[in-house]
Amino acid sequence: MDREDKLIERVRRKLPSRSRGVRIGIGDDAAVVGAPSGSVVAAVDLLLEGRHFRRDWSSAYDIGVKAAARSLADIAAMGAVNTALLVALAAPGTLPASWPVDLADGLAAEASRAGAGIVGGDTARADSVLLSVTALGDLAGRQPVLRSGASPGDVIAVAGPLGRSAAGLALLTAGVTADATSAALAGLVAAHLRPSPPYQAGPEAAMLGATAMIDVSDGLVADLGHIAAASGVALDIDSSSLVIGGPLAEAAAMLRDKSDSYGTNRGFSTHSIALEWVLTGGEDHSLVAMFPASAVLPSQWHVIGHVRAGAGVTVDGAPHAGPGGWQHFR
Amino acid sequence: MDREDKLIERVRRKLPSRSRGVRIGIGDDAAVVGAPSGSVVAAVDLLLEGRHFRRDWSSAYDIGVKAAARSLADIAAMGAVNTALLVALAAPGTLPASWPVDLADGLAAEASRAGAGIVGGDTARADSVLLSVTALGDLAGRQPVLRSGASPGDVIAVAGPLGRSAAGLALLTAGVTADATSAALAGLVAAHLRPSPPYQAGPEAAMLGATAMIDVSDGLVADLGHIAAASGVALDIDSSSLVIGGPLAEAAAMLRDKSDSYGTNRGFSTHSIALEWVLTGGEDHSLVAMFPASAVLPSQWHVIGHVRAGAGVTVDGAPHAGPGGWQHFR
Repeated sequence: MDREDKLIERVRRKLPSRSRGVRIGIGDDAAVVGAPSGSVVAAVDLLLEGRHFRRDWSSAYDIGVKAAARSLADIAAMGAVNTALLVALAAPGTLPASWPVDLADGLAAEASRAGAGIVGGDTARADSVLLSVTALGDLAGRQPVLRSGASPGDVIAVAGPLGRSAAGLALLTAGVTADATSAALAGLVAAHLRPSPPYQAGPEAAMLGATAMIDVSDGLVADLGHIAAASGVALDIDSSSLVIGGPLAEAAAMLRDKSDSYGTNRGFSTHSIALEWVLTGGEDHSLVAMFPASAVLPSQWHVIGHVRAGAGVTVDGAPHAGPGGWQHFR
Repeated sequence: MDREDKLIERVRRKLPSRSRGVRIGIGDDAAVVGAPSGSVVAAVDLLLEGRHFRRDWSSAYDIGVKAAARSLADIAAMGAVNTALLVALAAPGTLPASWPVDLADGLAAEASRAGAGIVGGDTARADSVLLSVTALGDLAGRQPVLRSGASPGDVIAVAGPLGRSAAGLALLTAGVTADATSAALAGLVAAHLRPSPPYQAGPEAAMLGATAMIDVSDGLVADLGHIAAASGVALDIDSSSLVIGGPLAEAAAMLRDKSDSYGTNRGFSTHSIALEWVLTGGEDHSLVAMFPASAVLPSQWHVIGHVRAGAGVTVDGAPHAGPGGWQHFR
């Protein structure tokens, strides 16, 4: 067994191959994963160095969590439970041997949180780090919750936080690191580096009768735009219903006052900076779903707006003037 | 709709989304694909510029075919039928607009040949072209054919050609292009650029009682090595049973006589050059399977050796002295 085989074996031992329904894991030509519903839900997402993460900000563990979360959230947004991940990794040969092991730890931790095994993979050398993660899931006999089912009269509700990843990115961009700040701000930085989507809320929304659902990867306004277009409806967000937590306000106040090159916030109120993160910040991978007005929603689902006849997304009845979507690293 | 959206729409129209069992294709958070057996077979493979293809040799269409074939063959090697592909593409922004459209044509053509739809994808910018293709399949109620089931007394049989891709690569490396050569040699170059695995032979082998199976991606000796290790058996190849076709002999003769820098073949006989391609050439993605000696094999399965007690792979009873495995572009 040469050095590379030993490394692959070390990585393999980190991976949760024996979870829900995994019949054949890593090590053959392909994996075999249970699909008790008679269909499988599948999505693939790329995570690229320089675009979705920076190695000076994100540890290998962080990158593993983020790569897994990005794909796992797509499965939850269909109303399905996660069953398995397949991970393709291209990386420079100059990385320390601990790097792929730590990456596997992060992938494994987030996959386990979602109940998924890691059942397949491929690796290759490249100049920068690139991950392609395919997530598989099962609908447990339910119909998938598509983007196209929203109807006028439905309510818009969100499970999970909004704007925290964007605030964390703004802090990192301004040179604020998790080590050198308050616990509240460190939590925002962590939210950017290691998103924590509410996976179980996806199947829960399906059981509650959700008519449409998406995960917030591009930003609330942008992702609701996909729902509005697919469903042929207008969506209006009630900004007074959006939760702008203490940490977001603290980060907005700090960045507004910071007299460094990160000066784009000057002239805006703390509230408007934080609201912008909530409306347009991506990568929280929270779930936003439409429900019939009669649905009785448990506490993790928070109503933030209404579906009307028409087209497009508005905030308090008016088009949103902001950039309108998450551009990752601009 | 901006220029990039229009391009994605053009690409999407190329893709066979409505094939066997595809319930929800591209366009939502995830796809939904039929898995009538109650389980899904899944594999992911990376295809990288500079390692698995060169853009001066391979057209975008060629790259699409090769990327699809590589993953589709893994599903067939489990004895499953292909149902769907998910494709992640990282590529430079400088490629012409026709490039991804032609790539989609190649992916679609090969997926259709295997009966699979293309149901999901992701794209990003990168300095060089990288594809990650996840293939899904269904076992139609059968058990998967693993690498670990071979027993002493079984025969080794192959479906599909061996060595043609390696010969084609040798021709390209020596500066022989498909345009400037005989039809036979052009066929070898085409076999390297656009492999054509015998997908239907995978489920067929399962129905014939195959005890183990793998697709020849790393070379016959190397891939049989995986079977020998997983099954705990010795595998002996009978070199007199290997088919060395006219085109392989023609290519070997041409390259032996070519007095250019590609001189590694000098001093070897035409037969030994061609035999080396057959034994160690990768990327034909033919299927090699073990069957009980009593199995009655249809004509596309050709017996090339026997399974014995012991360990490792031999050729005519002796260890193979060659490089022992396909190194892609060395």
